Amino acid sequence: MEKAKAFLELTQGESDRVSSLAFPPHRLGTECSFYEYYSLRGIRVDRIEPGQVFCTFKVPPRLTDREGKLASGAIANLVDEVGGAVVYVEGLPMNVSVDMSISFLSSAKAGDELEIIGRVLGQKGGYSGTSVLVKNKTTGELIAEGRHSLFGKHASKM
Amino acid sequence: MEKAKAFLELTQGESDRVSSLAFPPHRLGTECSFYEYYSLRGIRVDRIEPGQVFCTFKVPPRLTDREGKLASGAIANLVDEVGGAVVYVEGLPMNVSVDMSISFLSSAKAGDELEIIGRVLGQKGGYSGTSVLVKNKTTGELIAEGRHSLFGKHASKM
Amino acid sequence: MEKAKAFLELTQGESDRVSSLAFPPHRLGTECSFYEYYSLRGIRVDRIEPGQVFCTFKVPPRLTDREGKLASGAIANLVDEVGGAVVYVEGLPMNVSVDMSISFLSSAKAGDELEIIGRVLGQKGGYSGTSVLVKNKTTGELIAEGRHSLFGKHASKM
Amino acid sequence: MEKAKAFLELTQGESDRVSSLAFPPHRLGTECSFYEYYSLRGIRVDRIEPGQVFCTFKVPPRLTDREGKLASGAIANLVDEVGGAVVYVEGLPMNVSVDMSISFLSSAKAGDELEIIGRVLGQKGGYSGTSVLVKNKTTGELIAEGRHSLFGKHASKM
Repeated sequence: MEKAKAFLELTQGESDRVSSLAFPPHRLGTECSFYEYYSLRGIRVDRIEPGQVFCTFKVPPRLTDREGKLASGAIANLVDEVGGAVVYVEGLPMNVSVDMSISFLSSAKAGDELEIIGRVLGQKGGYSGTSVLVKNKTTGELIAEGRHSLFGKHASKM
Repeated sequence: MEKAKAFLELTQGESDRVSSLAFPPHRLGTECSFYEYYSLRGIRVDRIEPGQVFCTFKVPPRLTDREGKLASGAIANLVDEVGGAVVYVEGLPMNVSVDMSISFLSSAKAGDELEIIGRVLGQKGGYSGTSVLVKNKTTGELIAEGRHSLFGKHASKM
Repeated sequence: MEKAKAFLELTQGESDRVSSLAFPPHRLGTECSFYEYYSLRGIRVDRIEPGQVFCTFKVPPRLTDREGKLASGAIANLVDEVGGAVVYVEGLPMNVSVDMSISFLSSAKAGDELEIIGRVLGQKGGYSGTSVLVKNKTTGELIAEGRHSLFGKHASKM
Repeated sequence: MEKAKAFLELTQGESDRVSSLAFPPHRLGTECSFYEYYSLRGIRVDRIEPGQVFCTFKVPPRLTDREGKLASGAIANLVDEVGGAVVYVEGLPMNVSVDMSISFLSSAKAGDELEIIGRVLGQKGGYSGTSVLVKNKTTGELIAEGRHSLFGKHASKM
């Protein structure tokens, strides 16, 4: 049990390092949440083509894990948000994430510049499938490939 | 392009709300990163059984999205970390995440108490598969089911 | 190109071995297709509990791959069909498969007896998530874990 | 229980329709199994580029489901085999499938001509990630997108 605690729970010292941070509340539905600020700040939309969104993002230290690599969860955030953005841009129904899957093919460290490409794969009823590629912009190496499926609750109105 | 910018990039106002936060650096390999603090602070390891870890976690406002729901990316973090923890506890090789997939079945809001169960599914060579269930602790409703596959780089030494 | 041809395309000899087989047509919507016969013949429904279906299946030689192991695609068939069955039994909308993901944790050979457990994970709108475990019935070892998401086209009528 | 039996188990009539088919045994490791013949017969490798394999495949009646659509499991077979082929062509280690995930975006019926594109996404240690697109060759519409991860048991020798 101690091993699991050490792995998951934070020590007092770690808690103290950040206890002074205050996360301001946001107005639901109208404002970006702190979470979105935290995961996306610094992302840039470079170009849009039909069914595709191209972004760049410099890996910030705040999203790195124990080893200084871009955290897997932070990659999942990018797949979630950039997949959502491409569906939004295309005007497809998108209220709810239903499935997400990601292959992690290599890693990125703080300061690396990423190219993130979101694509609509297709649509069936109120359900939209997207693909998100996360690449090292300098080397072209693929860091992760994700798929994100969204389902529009109010599909019938669209 | 403006739609995508509005969806992904942050406005000046949003940036100002949080610009005062400083994310302290961490010593690689020895300290938890801010990212881990941010995604996991408050998680509690309740119980360990062979191949299983049971945790509770009260959804903090800092992990909610625009609509005030636990963000999909934050659920992915939990799948990543709790899956990693159960592999770590079992002493299986676990250096690298190779695949993660998640079904989102319902949602949670700030203050909801979650039960998070990580299980080892099996192991093949240096590769370990885990399953992570995220439930509403009060109602028992399943919020997400995730799978996380990890691969040990130094499998031959283990 | 020759390598890919050798891997994917069949030689004349292989074609000759089976060229005498005739696959009878079926009446759409009312009859099982040959495909279903081929992938499922021999499966037995042993027990049903709320939200769960328990089956047994002895691995037939016809579903084994080059190495004599139950083919990955055949495991995918089981995840697809048993996931579909549990949704059908529960009376949930299920017209269309939208996502399927599988972790392969060990293997089975011809003659091995499998236990296959399908579970409803949850439902959101017309969308249902299921989990399918494929185990060796004798040893209890997990062979594969799959998730299958189905979406009901006519959700509004249900 | 009757509903599940009706869904999964075959009736006597269905069994009789195909009981005359004999599935010839194959020599392990050296011959294609009947399963591979059954799922792949008719596939054609059209072109190879670095890291990519392009195939065409006309949907045969033998792979259609109850509704006359290419079965989800048959699509999974194609993702499995074409993903395996591209790894094989590239000379990457590939002994074992570890993960497969598929989004089903539209459907195909008997006689439709498919284009199937397998791509290497990347490689980490003995682990290789591939992506497989299944398209309608006439309309260009995407039918399915799959990812297939393979792991080489003898990675250290390669």
